Amino acid sequence: MSTDIKKAFGAVLKQIRFEQNISQEKFALKIEMDRTYYASVEAGRRNISIENIEKISKGYHIPISEIFSRVETQLSNNCDGIN
Amino acid sequence: MSTDIKKAFGAVLKQIRFEQNISQEKFALKIEMDRTYYASVEAGRRNISIENIEKISKGYHIPISEIFSRVETQLSNNCDGIN
Repeated sequence: MSTDIKKAFGAVLKQIRFEQNISQEKFALKIEMDRTYYASVEAGRRNISIENIEKISKGYHIPISEIFSRVETQLSNNCDGIN
Repeated sequence: MSTDIKKAFGAVLKQIRFEQNISQEKFALKIEMDRTYYASVEAGRRNISIENIEKISKGYHIPISEIFSRVETQLSNNCDGIN
C-alpha cells in the first residue's frame, strides 16, 4: 500500500519530466538535487520528504496539489485495472 | 523557505483536526502514529515523508491533493500579508 504512493508519485514525476522534455540529469542539476537520488524517486524507491517534494514541485513549476491530483488519478486507475 | 512548507502543512493539519473535532491523542492512536511525532508535525517541526503524509491523509479521509491545496492557499495568504 505504502509502496503504491511512492511508485505512483515517481511515475507522475516521470510523465511531467517527459512533458517538459528535460533529462533526469538536467532537471536534477537545475534543482540542485543528487542525480541518482532523483532517479530513485522516479523509480518509486524513496520515501521522499515534504521539503524535497516542494523542491521538485518548484523545479517543474507545478503546485504540489496538482502533482498529487495526478498521483491520485493514477492510483484510482490502478484499482480499475484490478477490478 | 523550506520551513514555510512544514509550518503551513502543520497548520492545515491542525485546522482539519479541529474541523473533525478530534484530539491529537485520539487521531494519532487511530492512525497508529506516535503522539509526540504527530504533535511535532502539526507544530511544523518535521520534514515528514510521503508515506506518513499518506497515512495522515487517509486518517482524515481527505486526499493529499486537497490538503496541499489548502497549504498552498495558506502560503499565498502569508505572502499577501508581507506585501
